[in-house]
Amino acid sequence: MPQTKIKNRQFRLKTRPVERVVPDNFSFIEEDVPDLKDGEVLIRNRILSLDPTNRIWMTDMEQYMPPVEIGEVMRGLGIGRVAASKNPNFKEGDFVSGLLGWQDFFKAGADELKMLSKLPEVPGVTLETFAGAAGMTGLTAYFGLLEIGQPKQGETLVVSAAAGAVGSIVGQLGKISGLNVVGIAGSAEKCKWLTDDLSFDAAINYKESNWKDQLKKATPNGIDIDFENVGGEIMETVYQRMNLFGRIVLCGLISGYNDTDDSKSRLPLSSALMKRLRIQGFIVMDFADKNVEAITKLATWIAQGKIKHRETIVNGLENAPTALNQLFDGGNVGKLLIKVSDD
Amino acid sequence: MPQTKIKNRQFRLKTRPVERVVPDNFSFIEEDVPDLKDGEVLIRNRILSLDPTNRIWMTDMEQYMPPVEIGEVMRGLGIGRVAASKNPNFKEGDFVSGLLGWQDFFKAGADELKMLSKLPEVPGVTLETFAGAAGMTGLTAYFGLLEIGQPKQGETLVVSAAAGAVGSIVGQLGKISGLNVVGIAGSAEKCKWLTDDLSFDAAINYKESNWKDQLKKATPNGIDIDFENVGGEIMETVYQRMNLFGRIVLCGLISGYNDTDDSKSRLPLSSALMKRLRIQGFIVMDFADKNVEAITKLATWIAQGKIKHRETIVNGLENAPTALNQLFDGGNVGKLLIKVSDD
Repeated sequence: MPQTKIKNRQFRLKTRPVERVVPDNFSFIEEDVPDLKDGEVLIRNRILSLDPTNRIWMTDMEQYMPPVEIGEVMRGLGIGRVAASKNPNFKEGDFVSGLLGWQDFFKAGADELKMLSKLPEVPGVTLETFAGAAGMTGLTAYFGLLEIGQPKQGETLVVSAAAGAVGSIVGQLGKISGLNVVGIAGSAEKCKWLTDDLSFDAAINYKESNWKDQLKKATPNGIDIDFENVGGEIMETVYQRMNLFGRIVLCGLISGYNDTDDSKSRLPLSSALMKRLRIQGFIVMDFADKNVEAITKLATWIAQGKIKHRETIVNGLENAPTALNQLFDGGNVGKLLIKVSDD
Repeated sequence: MPQTKIKNRQFRLKTRPVERVVPDNFSFIEEDVPDLKDGEVLIRNRILSLDPTNRIWMTDMEQYMPPVEIGEVMRGLGIGRVAASKNPNFKEGDFVSGLLGWQDFFKAGADELKMLSKLPEVPGVTLETFAGAAGMTGLTAYFGLLEIGQPKQGETLVVSAAAGAVGSIVGQLGKISGLNVVGIAGSAEKCKWLTDDLSFDAAINYKESNWKDQLKKATPNGIDIDFENVGGEIMETVYQRMNLFGRIVLCGLISGYNDTDDSKSRLPLSSALMKRLRIQGFIVMDFADKNVEAITKLATWIAQGKIKHRETIVNGLENAPTALNQLFDGGNVGKLLIKVSDD
């Protein structure tokens, strides 16, 4: 067991962000690592996953989990190593993933341990990959595209935030499913990565003034599936090209997460009626009963090189609040991670 | 065969309505009833069905069929009697339903005949019922609620335009399916009909200033299915009370059909994401392969008194354009029909 002099740094939510997250939204405090009671486990956090949903959790709005309360440790997915255990089911050295929080150490009792998953050992799959393509990120792409999108070979898929963690996997799953895949991303470099390395059929830089024309040209037969990560004008532009019986997979609406109202990401539903579209929201936990099957497939495709992935890694827990804004600025490519420690 | 001196009155689309339909949008002309060629059938129209979709067909907008062209006979569903036939598959006296148009007679060649259905003889089911509860109206309610809505016993269903042709059937199908059924309608008299005669659990008059509070009280466990016929503020109010995994069945958005843009009926999709809602459009033809099964069930329920229906019948083809506006003014209860003839 660690001695009590070991310190646990924690980001605790101090104020709710009005628009962008600023460092002052948190108190960055240090506490002694608590002693373990019977049944408890102490986890040394290795990697934190930075996700758009972190921003949602900071807002006191309707959402799929309760928002983080003022004073609580900031909620976040991560991967850690069991540093000490008074629980027979976990031994020192086990790697676990779950909601470890923005802190150096996570102390888990019976309730928290139920929410953690032990990581399997898969040759060639690193912790970083388990935090991304072979973890919640990959599962989000997998369930969203396959379960909600219900793709049929030869259809056209458009994915927004295509160079992001989820989007880049979605497009590759689309190619595995025999789809015509068009990505929308925010720089020429990202677009090049999508077409040259990830085999997207086309990639469109929405910062170019004629991107809507480019989208038209890239989708001559219309769009059957919109895997939507962004919302706002991008979603509405894609929406106008949806085909009869098209599906809009609502995975994220990041363009509005820093807004104080929900005026963005409203769609005129007359088209959904006339074209018999299906617009459907989901979160990855909805399909938890299929996780094992899905992770097995994802890990296989990663091992075979059919799914490639990139990570943008920021060193140091202390940088989490500012790094989070990269998701909103398009600063990252692939999965955005905080490296907390090597212990 | 009728002699050529028999006249066929027709409404031909002259101008597209800007907002409400006005008589001047049509030319009301008289032509000789044409002679029949081999294979053709002449149908004497008996009843025209007035539906919100008539208004859609008049507008040059994106829709599920091409709009009526300027100069064409106004498109409309109806029921008629074969008055003369040079086709072995149709004999004088047969009753048929289909897109007979706003006219006295419909001359059908090979292509048109494929789109017509012969009416079966069902004891106690009148032509008016076949134009409504046992026809396209009933089928719309049936497929929308059961196929798109996927109701589960004990869930809460809200239906808008609940005293209309489709809405009144939807609510009764909801009761047959074991749902808690709340209707939204536009007068105290309509609401009384819904609760007293059709066994809705509650009915709310949206013209009362506190109707939103009434909706809250009538749906203490939230709303699982919104069968949406209206759109606009009514839809958005219902939307705010949708439960996790709720379904929004997009059947109609009549509040916007007289508008010149699609600014109404936009929903903020953040809720759909957080609550994992499914918003899905459909039209009755999407399920045509199940028509026979569905009509059999509907006719049985009608015969058993489990589905009650009302018709608002306007006499005279010449009144079709003005009568159509009743749908937008809430003037009708149940199915709105034009009686063209008794021949």
